[in-house]
Amino acid sequence: MSVVLNNPLHRKLRMALIGGGGGGFIGRVHATAAQLDNRAVVVAGALSSNPDKSKQTAPAFGIADERAYGSYRELLDGETELPAEGRVDFVSIATPNHTHFEIAQAALKAGLHVVCDKPMTNHVAEAEQLAELVAQSGSVFALTHNYTGYPMIRQARAMIEAGELGEIQAVRANYMQGWLCGMELDPNAPRGVWKADPAKAGSGSLGDVGTHAFNLVGYVTGLRATQLSCLMRSFHPERPLDDYGHVAIKFDEAALGMIIFSQITHGRLNDLTLEVDGTKGAISWRQEDPNQLVVQRTGQATQTYDRDPAAGYTNELARDACRIPAGHPEGFFEAFANVYRAAFDDMARHAAGEAIDSRCTAYPNVHDGVEGVRFIAACQASSDVDGQWLPIA
Amino acid sequence: MSVVLNNPLHRKLRMALIGGGGGGFIGRVHATAAQLDNRAVVVAGALSSNPDKSKQTAPAFGIADERAYGSYRELLDGETELPAEGRVDFVSIATPNHTHFEIAQAALKAGLHVVCDKPMTNHVAEAEQLAELVAQSGSVFALTHNYTGYPMIRQARAMIEAGELGEIQAVRANYMQGWLCGMELDPNAPRGVWKADPAKAGSGSLGDVGTHAFNLVGYVTGLRATQLSCLMRSFHPERPLDDYGHVAIKFDEAALGMIIFSQITHGRLNDLTLEVDGTKGAISWRQEDPNQLVVQRTGQATQTYDRDPAAGYTNELARDACRIPAGHPEGFFEAFANVYRAAFDDMARHAAGEAIDSRCTAYPNVHDGVEGVRFIAACQASSDVDGQWLPIA
Amino acid sequence: MSVVLNNPLHRKLRMALIGGGGGGFIGRVHATAAQLDNRAVVVAGALSSNPDKSKQTAPAFGIADERAYGSYRELLDGETELPAEGRVDFVSIATPNHTHFEIAQAALKAGLHVVCDKPMTNHVAEAEQLAELVAQSGSVFALTHNYTGYPMIRQARAMIEAGELGEIQAVRANYMQGWLCGMELDPNAPRGVWKADPAKAGSGSLGDVGTHAFNLVGYVTGLRATQLSCLMRSFHPERPLDDYGHVAIKFDEAALGMIIFSQITHGRLNDLTLEVDGTKGAISWRQEDPNQLVVQRTGQATQTYDRDPAAGYTNELARDACRIPAGHPEGFFEAFANVYRAAFDDMARHAAGEAIDSRCTAYPNVHDGVEGVRFIAACQASSDVDGQWLPIA
Amino acid sequence: MSVVLNNPLHRKLRMALIGGGGGGFIGRVHATAAQLDNRAVVVAGALSSNPDKSKQTAPAFGIADERAYGSYRELLDGETELPAEGRVDFVSIATPNHTHFEIAQAALKAGLHVVCDKPMTNHVAEAEQLAELVAQSGSVFALTHNYTGYPMIRQARAMIEAGELGEIQAVRANYMQGWLCGMELDPNAPRGVWKADPAKAGSGSLGDVGTHAFNLVGYVTGLRATQLSCLMRSFHPERPLDDYGHVAIKFDEAALGMIIFSQITHGRLNDLTLEVDGTKGAISWRQEDPNQLVVQRTGQATQTYDRDPAAGYTNELARDACRIPAGHPEGFFEAFANVYRAAFDDMARHAAGEAIDSRCTAYPNVHDGVEGVRFIAACQASSDVDGQWLPIA
Repeated sequence: MSVVLNNPLHRKLRMALIGGGGGGFIGRVHATAAQLDNRAVVVAGALSSNPDKSKQTAPAFGIADERAYGSYRELLDGETELPAEGRVDFVSIATPNHTHFEIAQAALKAGLHVVCDKPMTNHVAEAEQLAELVAQSGSVFALTHNYTGYPMIRQARAMIEAGELGEIQAVRANYMQGWLCGMELDPNAPRGVWKADPAKAGSGSLGDVGTHAFNLVGYVTGLRATQLSCLMRSFHPERPLDDYGHVAIKFDEAALGMIIFSQITHGRLNDLTLEVDGTKGAISWRQEDPNQLVVQRTGQATQTYDRDPAAGYTNELARDACRIPAGHPEGFFEAFANVYRAAFDDMARHAAGEAIDSRCTAYPNVHDGVEGVRFIAACQASSDVDGQWLPIA
Repeated sequence: MSVVLNNPLHRKLRMALIGGGGGGFIGRVHATAAQLDNRAVVVAGALSSNPDKSKQTAPAFGIADERAYGSYRELLDGETELPAEGRVDFVSIATPNHTHFEIAQAALKAGLHVVCDKPMTNHVAEAEQLAELVAQSGSVFALTHNYTGYPMIRQARAMIEAGELGEIQAVRANYMQGWLCGMELDPNAPRGVWKADPAKAGSGSLGDVGTHAFNLVGYVTGLRATQLSCLMRSFHPERPLDDYGHVAIKFDEAALGMIIFSQITHGRLNDLTLEVDGTKGAISWRQEDPNQLVVQRTGQATQTYDRDPAAGYTNELARDACRIPAGHPEGFFEAFANVYRAAFDDMARHAAGEAIDSRCTAYPNVHDGVEGVRFIAACQASSDVDGQWLPIA
Repeated sequence: MSVVLNNPLHRKLRMALIGGGGGGFIGRVHATAAQLDNRAVVVAGALSSNPDKSKQTAPAFGIADERAYGSYRELLDGETELPAEGRVDFVSIATPNHTHFEIAQAALKAGLHVVCDKPMTNHVAEAEQLAELVAQSGSVFALTHNYTGYPMIRQARAMIEAGELGEIQAVRANYMQGWLCGMELDPNAPRGVWKADPAKAGSGSLGDVGTHAFNLVGYVTGLRATQLSCLMRSFHPERPLDDYGHVAIKFDEAALGMIIFSQITHGRLNDLTLEVDGTKGAISWRQEDPNQLVVQRTGQATQTYDRDPAAGYTNELARDACRIPAGHPEGFFEAFANVYRAAFDDMARHAAGEAIDSRCTAYPNVHDGVEGVRFIAACQASSDVDGQWLPIA
Repeated sequence: MSVVLNNPLHRKLRMALIGGGGGGFIGRVHATAAQLDNRAVVVAGALSSNPDKSKQTAPAFGIADERAYGSYRELLDGETELPAEGRVDFVSIATPNHTHFEIAQAALKAGLHVVCDKPMTNHVAEAEQLAELVAQSGSVFALTHNYTGYPMIRQARAMIEAGELGEIQAVRANYMQGWLCGMELDPNAPRGVWKADPAKAGSGSLGDVGTHAFNLVGYVTGLRATQLSCLMRSFHPERPLDDYGHVAIKFDEAALGMIIFSQITHGRLNDLTLEVDGTKGAISWRQEDPNQLVVQRTGQATQTYDRDPAAGYTNELARDACRIPAGHPEGFFEAFANVYRAAFDDMARHAAGEAIDSRCTAYPNVHDGVEGVRFIAACQASSDVDGQWLPIA
C-alpha cells in the first residue's frame, strides 16, 4: 500500500491533460486517478478543441492560465520550450478515438511519456506504427484499460498464472450498458456525442466497451485469440454504428471464448462481467461489485474472496493493488489509479536511466493496444460477412 | 391457485411411470410433480429395464406389486387388458433419451396420453413421426421442458407477448453445470451413466441442458430461430460427448441470440439464466432464484418482481402458476407440476370429448419437441464444420 | 432421500384436516406437505366453522362428501365410530390460534395423533396442560414450526451441535413482513381476518411470526433463553394488536440474542433471517433463499454452502432433509413436509408398538410449543411494563 | 460534480495532519479524501507521538521536512509563527480517541479549523466544552462520521425529509465486524493497538463502530433518541473492552430503534447496514454495496436505486455527492471526501467573512459529536446495570 514519492527525482510527476473539457467525464477521471496517490500533479492542459473552452475549464483542473493551451500542438510546443525542470513529464490523452494516434505520436516525438485512452487508434496500421515508435523512443506508454487495475482482477490473473484453475477451458465476458436507450429518449443528451460519429469513433459499442472485455480476457487468462466470429447490430434505424454484438473466439489452445457487448440493454449501467472455467476451478467477477471474486471448485462450498490485503488467500499482485482494508469499498478511481501507478513506476525507472520494456505487463501497454485494434478490425470484418470465422490478423 | 379435481371424470388421473428406478432422480420428480396437486396418482410402473429392480422399486412409488411391470411393453399390454375404468390414463416417460421414441409411439398407439422427458427423440425423423402420430391420435402429449413452468418465466412470456418490452432485440440464455467435474473425480459416480453413452444420449451437454435453454428462449420470446453457428467441445480426453458449447442464433427478425451450455464449470449446479433485451425494457431471471424477475427500463429504478399472486404487477399467466403467497419459496417441483397441471387440463378436455390442439401452448408440446431435436441436429452439424452458420432445418 | 412407505402398516397414513376452508392458505399447505412424499392421504376434514363451507371445500382436498364434517367435534365423533382400519390416524389443526387447545385436547383424548399449527395455544396454562396430555396419551404431537424443516437450517443445527462454530456468543433473528400495510390499503382484504382479533389471535405479529423466530433460534443453537426485554408497538391507530417489536434475550450462558418481528415493513414478504456468531465461525441464512447457508471463518473466504446432498460439507441431518439434487430449488412445501415426515416416522414407530418420546427433536414437539407460549407471555408482560427485563417463566 | 477551487482565496486549502504515522490506515484516508478533489493539500503534519517516526513518515504524505513536527503542540506553535499566507488552514485529527479533545481545543484556540475523527472525545464534559469553544471561535469543526458522505445515504435522508417514506416507525442499524477474531489468532497484529486500551479508547466496539451506526440513524431519519437499553459483552476473557452489544432505542415519537454492533462476528469486514420503516415505504442500504439503495412500497416491485446522478429518481442531495456516472463504483474514499468537501465549503465561506453555523448539517458537526459521546455514556451506564432503560442525558 506504499504511496511514497519513490521516484529518483523526489518530486511529483508533472502531467498534461489532453481532452477533458467536453461533456464526458473521462478527463476528470484521468486527473483524479493520476493524482490519487499524490505522485503526480496536473500542471498543463489542452482540454478542448475549442481554445476558449480549454482556458475556461483549466482552473477546475488546477491548471494555471499560462499552461492552458488551445491545442495539443500548442501544448507540446509550449512545454518543450520550458526548461526540463518545469516541463511536463507525460501527457494523458482523453480525446475522441480518431485523434489518439496523432497526439500520441507527437507527444512521443516530443520526448514525453504517454498515457492514452482506448481504443488506441482507429486503424491497425496506426497502432502498429505507434508500437514501433514507442520501442524507438524508449518512453513509457500506458493504455488505460482501467479494469485491469481492480485488485480482484489481479488476484484472478495471478491465480491463473500460478495454475490454480488448471488449464483454462472457457472464458465469457459480457459488457452490458443501456445508455443509448437514454440517448434515444433525449437526442440532445450531451454525453458522448462524438461516439455516434463513425469518422471519429471508428466503431460503436465494440470499440467503446467490447474492446475492454477483450483486453480483460487476455489480461486475466493469458490466452491468445486466433479466430473469431462476430455479429453486430445497430438496432436503432438512425444509428450508424453498432450498439450490440457478440464475438465467439477460438484461442490457440482448445479454449473457447465469448464476448458480448451492448449499449442498448435497458437498465444496465457499466455491467462488465468475467467468468473463467478451468480444469481445477472456476471464477467469476463483476465490475459493479469489484471488491469480490467468486471462486468455485467441485466438492467445495462456493468461496467469495474479498479484496482483503490481510487475508491469506490474497496473492501479492492483488495485495499491491489495494489501498485500504477490506470492507471499505474501493472503486473505479482506485482501479484507474493502479494503471497510472504502474506507469509512474516505469517513468521513475526511466528517470533513473533504466531501459523501459514496452511489453511490461504491470499496465496495459502499446502491444495490448495493437491487439485491441486488430480485434476491432477482425470483428468488423467478420460481422460484415455475416459472422464468418476470420483470423485475428 | 385452484387445485380442484375439475376433470369431468371427477377422479384423479391414473399415471404409469416408465423409468425412475435407476440412479437418476428424474423419475421421482415426475411422480412428485404429477401428484403435487392431488389430481393424479401413480398406479403402475415399468421403473427399470431390469425387471427385478422394477419390482423392488415399485413400493417406494406406491405402486402395487401386480402393476409393477418388467418393461414398458408389458405395461402397455397389461394396462390395455384392464377395464377402461381401472386402466392408466397416461404414461410418463423418464427413461434414457434413445428410448423415448419407441415408448411414446407405443403408448400413443395404445390410446394413452403421454408426458415425455426431453430431448423428445434422438433423431429428427423420429421427432417428426411422433408429431404426426400425436396429431392422428388426438391424445395429449406434453414434453417436460419444466423450466417453462416457473411463474416468473410465465410472467416474462406474457409481458413480452403484451408488448411490454417492445420489440425483442437480443436474448441470452446460459445453462451452466459442473457435475462432470465431479464425475471425473469419481468415475464410479452413479448419476447419469447413460448420459455418457453417445448411442443412448445422442448428445452430451447440448441435449441435456442446452436444449432446455433453447426451448426457454422460444417460450419466453416467441422468436423463431432460423440460423445458428455452434462450437462444442469435449474437454475431457476420454469423454465421447460434448461437455461445453455456445450457439449464436439469428432469428427471423433482426434479433440476436446466444446460448451457452456447460457441464464442466466448477461449482455451478443448475445455473440456467435468461436475459432478454427489448426496445422498451429488459428482463433477467435465474433458475436458482426462480421467485424473482428483474425488470429494467431506462430512467427507472431496477425493479424486482416477486412471484406474488397478490401484486398488481403480476399477470394472469404467472398468477395461475402460483400455489402459495409470495415470500414462501416455490421451487423445482412446483414448476414441474405446472407442466403436468396444464396437461391434466387437456386430458380433462379430452375426457369431456373436446378436441385437443397439439399446438396448445399451455405446456411444451410435440412441436416444441421437434424444434428441440432440430436444434440439436443443427448444432451438431455446425460444430462438425467448425462453427459455420447453418439453417435450422 | 428415501420416501418409502416404511411404516409397519404398509399403507399411507390417513389424515383429517381441521381448518383450511377459509381465506388463508395454511390448510392447503398442510395438505400438500403431508402428502408430498406419498406417505399420507387426506381422507376427512372439518374445513370451516361454517358447515356448508366445509362441505363445499371438501372436494378440492379430495375429501369424500361423507367425511366432510361440520365441526371438529363431529369429525372426532364420526371417525371414532369408524372401524380402526378406516379411521383417520391423525388430525392436522390449521385453525385460528384460540381453538388449537380444545381441538388438540379432544383429538388426543380420541386417541389420535396431532399435528398442530403454532402458536400452540393462547395461554401458558393450556400449553402446559397439553404437554401433560401428550405425555399421558403416548400419541405423537408435532407443532408446525415449519422453518426448522429447511435442510440448511438442519445443516446449521448439526454444525453447531458438533461444535463447528465453537461457543455461541450471539444470535440474531429477524422476521419481517409488510402485509399489514396492504391490509390498510384494502380493509376488505380477506387474508388473516381472525389474526386481527385479540380474542382469537392472542397476539399480533409476535405470535404470528416472532414465535417462529424464537423457535428457530432455539432449534439451531440449542441455547436456553432465561430473560428478555421486549418492546412492541401497534403503529396503526385502529389496530388492537402488536404489529412490530423487538426482544433482547439473555441466554443461560453469556450469549446475547435479538429477535425483531414486523408486519408493517413495506415490501417484505416473509423475510425470516438468522445469524449466529460463535467463537470459531459465524453463519447466516435467509428463508427466501433457503437453499444456501453462508459460513464465515476468520482468515478464510466466505463460504456459501448449497443444499447439496452430494457435497462433502453437508451433514447427515441436512442430507436427510433433501429430496432432489442441489441447484434444483426446494422451497416452503418441502420444508413443511419435513416436519410431517418426521412425525410420520414416529407415528410408524407408534404403530409398531414403540414408545414415543414426547421430547423427540426430529420435529418441533409439544414442549417447544410450551416454550413458545411462555415466550409470548413474557414478551407481552415485558412490553406492558415498557421493556423491563423479565424472566421467561 | 463541480470540483472547482471556488474558495475566495482561489487556492487550495492547507492541511496539517495529526496522527497517521502509526499502524492504522485512517491517517492515509484523511489525506487521500481531503485531497481527492484537488481543493486541499497536506503541507504539515505531526504524524506520530514518536518524533522520529513522524519525520520518517512525512515524505510519504508529501510533507516537507521542516513542517514534519514532533508533536501537535510543536505543529501549532510552528505554524502560528508562519505568515498567514503560508500557515495551515486546518488540522485533521486522526489520533487515538483520548487525545482528540486536547488537540482539537488547542487547534481551535490557535484559530485553525478542525476536522476530527470520531468519537469526538472520551467524556461528555469534554464534548460539551468543545461545542462551546467551536461556537465562540467561529471556526469550522467537522467530525468524520464518513458514512454520512455516501450518496445513497444522502438520497435516503432527503427522501425521508421530504416525507417520501411517511412517518418513520422503526430503524435498524447493524455494524458488524470480525477483526477481533483475527487479533486473537495473532496477538501481535499491529492494527488498532490503542483500541484495546480502555484509557485510550474509552470504549471498544461501541465507540469504534456503534457510534457510527447511531450517527447514521440520526442523520438519515432526523429522529431524536430519548431513552435506551443497552447490553454489551466482552466475549474474550482477556479483553477489557466491549466487543459486542445491542442498543434498543426509544425516540421522541413512537418510533423504535435497534443498533447492534460487533467486532467478533467471523468474516464480517465493515458490514454497516441500515433499514428504515415508514408508513409509506421502507428502505435498506449496506455500506459494502454503497452504490445501491433498496426502496420498497406495498403493492410495488422492489426498487433498487443506483447512485445515478442522471436518473430522475435521484434527489439533489445525492446528486451533489456523486463524482462519476452510475455503474462506475464509488467507494469509501469518495464518501469520506464528501465530508471534507462540505467542510471546505464552510472554510471558504469563513474566508469570505461569512459567519459559520456550528449546526450546519452539510457535514457532521460538533453537536453531532456531543450526541455521540452522550450515546456512548448512556450505553455504558445501561449495560452496567444489566440493560435497564436510561435516558440519553
